[in-house]
Amino acid sequence: MANSKQTRSRGADKEKLFEKILDTGKDLYVKEGSVGMRALARKLGMSQANLYNYVESKRELWIAIRSSAQKELRKRMADLSRQKFENFTTFCLGVAQSFLEFASEDFPRFSIWEFIPPPPLVVDKITKIPKEIGPFERNYNPSSLINRGIILFSRKAKEFNVNLENPERFYFYLYGVAVGAAQAENELKLSQVMFKKKVVDPIFEPFAISPDTLSPETFRSYVLEEIKLKVEREVNR
Amino acid sequence: MANSKQTRSRGADKEKLFEKILDTGKDLYVKEGSVGMRALARKLGMSQANLYNYVESKRELWIAIRSSAQKELRKRMADLSRQKFENFTTFCLGVAQSFLEFASEDFPRFSIWEFIPPPPLVVDKITKIPKEIGPFERNYNPSSLINRGIILFSRKAKEFNVNLENPERFYFYLYGVAVGAAQAENELKLSQVMFKKKVVDPIFEPFAISPDTLSPETFRSYVLEEIKLKVEREVNR
Repeated sequence: MANSKQTRSRGADKEKLFEKILDTGKDLYVKEGSVGMRALARKLGMSQANLYNYVESKRELWIAIRSSAQKELRKRMADLSRQKFENFTTFCLGVAQSFLEFASEDFPRFSIWEFIPPPPLVVDKITKIPKEIGPFERNYNPSSLINRGIILFSRKAKEFNVNLENPERFYFYLYGVAVGAAQAENELKLSQVMFKKKVVDPIFEPFAISPDTLSPETFRSYVLEEIKLKVEREVNR
Repeated sequence: MANSKQTRSRGADKEKLFEKILDTGKDLYVKEGSVGMRALARKLGMSQANLYNYVESKRELWIAIRSSAQKELRKRMADLSRQKFENFTTFCLGVAQSFLEFASEDFPRFSIWEFIPPPPLVVDKITKIPKEIGPFERNYNPSSLINRGIILFSRKAKEFNVNLENPERFYFYLYGVAVGAAQAENELKLSQVMFKKKVVDPIFEPFAISPDTLSPETFRSYVLEEIKLKVEREVNR
């Protein structure tokens, strides 16, 4: 009994540490654009050898983070697909809101999903042949969320008797607006931290918008209102 | 005479090589998310020592690329500010088009400007103190293009007797749409390369939209049409 408990708690500890590795890795990606395994181990206060027990390369780390984003997006998409909506407009708004929340809840994860490309496979120093791919990459399965999204939107449009002129174009436009709004909302957040602290990052292009003029929250509402108008135009076309 | 010619041409050669370093650096950033100075020198077929004569660290490389983006954006903004427009809508469309062109002409540069954060300052291995900043960073001057943009939009609105309800919100919304549309347009381009070659990148989430259904060009026109409707709504409010 005692033994099995110990094993369970050791398993839980390992999982917790793994989560911490992913979180620290995400932060480094967003702060520095890249992650060195040595720097990551140092930041986590663990040996590089022990870090390699969890993720064996920065490409593997990237893929592990991307997998967690994919899992979350698939879950959200499945929820939205099952959820009851009043009409096509509320469905589209539900998707947009869920996407903006996905981005703002964990912007580093979103950024790796959307903007930061995978580090290359490690190449053998002598033969220049890429080394064997790691376990996260072996188990990674691209799930083509854009295709799934287009299928879901087309199905919902049919359900609500909405005739989309070009479902791909409609979906892709909303996707672009949501991606850009997520990025802009995050810049607004960063800038308001600087605004409050009266600190200016020497590299980041500073802009001084006071929260009273435009807060991340009012910006999000405005974006959703614009999306609503866009969908209504499409529905009433 | 001969000597001065030689000097000039040596200067031109150096400038050409510097441009090549920036271009290769940009490509590596976009393909691999990061640039190692050793890998960059190898790719350029030059020694690391010689590369350091041009840029002394990857942070300096990043800042040199960012400076070129900033220079180009400031130039475009100055052009737009001087250009004659028929009305506020054509002005806004001119800005949006110019931004989308800036992004698609050189997507790696845009990506570094917009999405990829600066590598950290190199820290001394023993003292952990950041080393002296390099010449590109010393000469870098953040120009707060968002603030300049808001000022330009407000001035043009006044010029055309348009009463913007909240200039910051209006500008920031258009900015978000343009950033997201640039990113979506680039994904569409990548996906159509894959579509034509029938190759699927193992990591990139594949989506199969045929160019007949939605090409990057028709997508851009659609985005501009949507922006036009948005601006007209604001003008006629």
